[in-house]
Amino acid sequence: MIARTGTCPGAAALVFGTLLAAPAMAQFAKPEDAIKYRQSAFTVMGNHMGRLAAMAKGERPYDAAAAQSSARIIDTIAKLPWEAFVPGSDQGKTGAKPELFANLADVRSLAERLNGETGKLTEAAGNLDAMRKQVGATGAACKACHEKYRNM
Amino acid sequence: MIARTGTCPGAAALVFGTLLAAPAMAQFAKPEDAIKYRQSAFTVMGNHMGRLAAMAKGERPYDAAAAQSSARIIDTIAKLPWEAFVPGSDQGKTGAKPELFANLADVRSLAERLNGETGKLTEAAGNLDAMRKQVGATGAACKACHEKYRNM
Repeated sequence: MIARTGTCPGAAALVFGTLLAAPAMAQFAKPEDAIKYRQSAFTVMGNHMGRLAAMAKGERPYDAAAAQSSARIIDTIAKLPWEAFVPGSDQGKTGAKPELFANLADVRSLAERLNGETGKLTEAAGNLDAMRKQVGATGAACKACHEKYRNM
Repeated sequence: MIARTGTCPGAAALVFGTLLAAPAMAQFAKPEDAIKYRQSAFTVMGNHMGRLAAMAKGERPYDAAAAQSSARIIDTIAKLPWEAFVPGSDQGKTGAKPELFANLADVRSLAERLNGETGKLTEAAGNLDAMRKQVGATGAACKACHEKYRNM
């Protein structure tokens, strides 16, 4: 659980960093494990976003059941990577920019935006037009974080 | 969807192989993508199995909400890797034994056993004793496939 600290970004970063680090480190024996975990989550999520995008663009036939299945997977996995930006995991085979680790409150806010969008994805995926719109909104939430914090 | 073919293993393998290959290949641009996808799913699943095992063994305090969250993630992700054993993905950076690709009907059967066990995991994770038992049954289902088809 992340404490909210109102409008003070410095304090938010401190509280988020502290709360993130303590329980999360216990989930990963080594920083490399945290990197591998978050990259794995992004890989699975990206694959299913690709399936939805292909249907949205008409590159693949729209299949409501398959789309909703992918949407459910995305919504589950989109909640996972954030605890894995633990201390020490800014080094090694990571595409995360150093700035990410100095702005964890902003990352949390961007993650919450993403989770808000993925939460609407399963229902939207039941209808092609609604899915197109919601895939766009979800992709925009992905991109907002990638542009700031991921080495392309 | 996998067609059931009764008690004829040869036909089952053929039907499973064919149905697996056709739609699944479309989900992965290259065999390497399929390998990365299934390994990513196993990484995330393994991490959460580790969290439950640590609680089951008393290495970490039991937390019902955290355990049930991990159980839900495991049950979702345990359904994913199987479509990714596509033709061509027996080569490259994979720990899958060649025998796996010659026995896809058996793999499917082992996957169904696993999914049966993970389907019971979330409810079980609400109680420490029930969780211990179900983590054991789930781990045994993982192991049954690893012993036959994974290079250790």
